[in-house]
Amino acid sequence: MSLLAVGSIAFDTIHTPYGDVEDILGGSATFFAVTASWFTSVSVVAVVGEDFGDQHFQVFRERSIDTRGVEQVPGRTFRWKGEYVGDMNQAHTLDTQLNVFESFVPKIPPAYLNSKFLFLGNIVPVLQLNVRRALPHLHATGMDTMNYWIQGMPEELAAVLATVDILLINEGEARLLSKQHHLKKAAAVIQKLGPRFVVIKRGEHGATLFGPESIFTVPGYPLEQVFDPTGAGDSFAGGFMGHLARTGDLSDANLRRAAVYGSVMGSFAVEEFGVGRLLRLAPSDIEARYREIKMLTHFDA
Amino acid sequence: MSLLAVGSIAFDTIHTPYGDVEDILGGSATFFAVTASWFTSVSVVAVVGEDFGDQHFQVFRERSIDTRGVEQVPGRTFRWKGEYVGDMNQAHTLDTQLNVFESFVPKIPPAYLNSKFLFLGNIVPVLQLNVRRALPHLHATGMDTMNYWIQGMPEELAAVLATVDILLINEGEARLLSKQHHLKKAAAVIQKLGPRFVVIKRGEHGATLFGPESIFTVPGYPLEQVFDPTGAGDSFAGGFMGHLARTGDLSDANLRRAAVYGSVMGSFAVEEFGVGRLLRLAPSDIEARYREIKMLTHFDA
Repeated sequence: MSLLAVGSIAFDTIHTPYGDVEDILGGSATFFAVTASWFTSVSVVAVVGEDFGDQHFQVFRERSIDTRGVEQVPGRTFRWKGEYVGDMNQAHTLDTQLNVFESFVPKIPPAYLNSKFLFLGNIVPVLQLNVRRALPHLHATGMDTMNYWIQGMPEELAAVLATVDILLINEGEARLLSKQHHLKKAAAVIQKLGPRFVVIKRGEHGATLFGPESIFTVPGYPLEQVFDPTGAGDSFAGGFMGHLARTGDLSDANLRRAAVYGSVMGSFAVEEFGVGRLLRLAPSDIEARYREIKMLTHFDA
Repeated sequence: MSLLAVGSIAFDTIHTPYGDVEDILGGSATFFAVTASWFTSVSVVAVVGEDFGDQHFQVFRERSIDTRGVEQVPGRTFRWKGEYVGDMNQAHTLDTQLNVFESFVPKIPPAYLNSKFLFLGNIVPVLQLNVRRALPHLHATGMDTMNYWIQGMPEELAAVLATVDILLINEGEARLLSKQHHLKKAAAVIQKLGPRFVVIKRGEHGATLFGPESIFTVPGYPLEQVFDPTGAGDSFAGGFMGHLARTGDLSDANLRRAAVYGSVMGSFAVEEFGVGRLLRLAPSDIEARYREIKMLTHFDA
């Protein structure tokens, strides 16, 4: 089924212990859409500036991603500059230039109004809510958010949370949002705010899915080297929502599979700068890593 | 099959956000033996002082643990004082009084010389090596160690590592020992030092077993509250080695089950101060939590 993503498209400048890149294609909608495109047909609502060239649109076209909802406006594209040091678990933001993203108002092309699955990337909550309300035929909506909105716009965020089915969030944010340290308690608090399913991402330690029926935990795929963590969370979301949209199945068993695909895609994302690795995949790579996680976690009852 | 443990018996004074206790029974051999006693017959080699009363020996007897190897000598029993604050992932040692433990020389009763499984708790490496060498009929030996020996006695530690089958170690220690940050690389380096199996414990995030054939990861059981983390690692080891000794089976599939039992027993250990929860178990509690971890990790291929 069709999957619509709203979020940011950015140019990232990144320093890691393994190298540096400048102004490479990034942003939550980019990582999400490129990842999800391996599972289902994806369309994107986002904004870019005049500096967003045909070679950048070409990345989306190459993955058959529908970019009719990517508005190009006067000004410069959103830019983020950050670095990873030490154990690379945490990005340190060095500079953020919102540019055209500052006045972003998502416009949904009529062709997208029948979308069945929606992912609300990490943007200001009131815009997430507007997009959610504009789509009447959804089977399921997933969303992301961040500390900045949790602390700065709690009421607006609560209004969006009340309308979604799935929240994908990292463990620090889950604790901040719920005011609970232990993740099981944190998830229970968040489920009362709206989302039936809460996926708490724990970086290299994997993720835990809290559903109405059960709890499921998937490990991180044990990479020998994390090259660039940027986009790992959005790629997790892309694999997760992509599998749900592909199957249209919201059963407990299928949500578990979706979480495994999330972990698989997050692990590919961090193997190279930007979306490099995510563009060079084959479906067999994805299935092989899925089976590896099965082997990694399987034991006899 | 019979399981012999060598390690410390201590009186612990502990401060946590949930309460305080003074001079309660603890130590690596205590947590290990009480835990492993749910799986197989266990004997202990350790040392205690004159202040170690019959009520303390009674704890071991209650679990049918053979204490003929627990030597009682003039002086006071080893004491440790520590506290847990914040996320409780790290113990802060406030005071250590080695007392009789300072001059501990493990003496192995003749009746123990046919032991088939051995666990070398975290004591000075040269003593670990002496115990290992004194036992000619072992099927498998597991060991623990710590930063203090890794940094202070690397050659002695290497000599022990070369003689054991399994190293159980936490992630910080694994990195220190291997000089590798990523755990997969760390385990590969450690395997070259001797142990075929390396179990890297990651606290609430569970543990990963690196074997010659495969990698297996088990999550931490999702407790709503960790009451006192003291002894969690030794209880993990007790469940792990206990299951191996009970079955006598060193296959890949059985090592995986052992790691799950390790996670199960570690989760019970932290629910109360000291060995309180570990004494009040029933076999059905252990099997129920084992099945819960199966449910927590199962997904369809």
